[in-house]
Amino acid sequence: MLAATLALAAEEEPAGLHMEAIARRAGVSKETLYRWWHSKTEVVLDALAEQGQRTIGLPDTGTLRGDLRTFLRATVDSANPATMRLLYSIAAAAAADEAVAHQIRDRFLATRRADLGQLLDRAADRGEISRGRAALAVDFIYGSMWYRLIFRVGPLGYQWADEVADAIAAG
Amino acid sequence: MLAATLALAAEEEPAGLHMEAIARRAGVSKETLYRWWHSKTEVVLDALAEQGQRTIGLPDTGTLRGDLRTFLRATVDSANPATMRLLYSIAAAAAADEAVAHQIRDRFLATRRADLGQLLDRAADRGEISRGRAALAVDFIYGSMWYRLIFRVGPLGYQWADEVADAIAAG
Repeated sequence: MLAATLALAAEEEPAGLHMEAIARRAGVSKETLYRWWHSKTEVVLDALAEQGQRTIGLPDTGTLRGDLRTFLRATVDSANPATMRLLYSIAAAAAADEAVAHQIRDRFLATRRADLGQLLDRAADRGEISRGRAALAVDFIYGSMWYRLIFRVGPLGYQWADEVADAIAAG
Repeated sequence: MLAATLALAAEEEPAGLHMEAIARRAGVSKETLYRWWHSKTEVVLDALAEQGQRTIGLPDTGTLRGDLRTFLRATVDSANPATMRLLYSIAAAAAADEAVAHQIRDRFLATRRADLGQLLDRAADRGEISRGRAALAVDFIYGSMWYRLIFRVGPLGYQWADEVADAIAAG
């Protein structure tokens, strides 16, 4: 059903992504869909979380700089047009409604933060970064990404990925 | 007229901020208002930019760490409820519409980025930070701020201000 949601998102504007359309595409009844998810927002967030974990993965190159470069380049690569539309739509929804922001944070952002956090924790184990800086680094990295995304203050390509990786790894 | 806009924003939801209401509050005709601003969005962005420059200022403590702590604590202090509502409303508008995002970036965010950039440039002159890192620091700082604001991933208080200041000043 998460795959059906993403396939549909590739064809439809976020507003056209209804529970009924998702159920139809997945070949299940609306009742079945509602047994697992209470709303369209929940399905979309789970689909984004699942896609992120599947396509971005968790590199293990042996150094923080290498891990961050691989992880952030994969993050850049995962941003196809359908995903981008969904990211803009959840950002607008989060800014407009605090309860929705909490849902987005806990159901999708938390999974991305956990993966990046794991990568930084391993670097802290190796003594490459302090625990306190590792926590702040998650905000710096995803913060600069969403800031560039939402307000178009800069491109999000491999140059962004490498510069961010180098700055964080340098301390 | 910018003061009238902010006074009105303190009383009204962003949706209730119309050109007619702004003109009435400022005691001018709608025609006069439209002579200087083409839309409500323009007036709001100019009011936010003017308020930011007036209330946050540009500290000169002699060190990057001191300047950043003062600047970011003042940024935290400037976030009264009316300003917060306006910030959420422009973030939602930016995520929903690319042309509006450009307007917000060029008319408001650029003024905040320029002030923070000036503070970092002075630190680069003193050899406290490289020019490349200074540019990235602007994204890290405002990125983490908007990310916490929009997605409620963490509080924006003096602790955030000091931790960010220390991390950036440490390199």
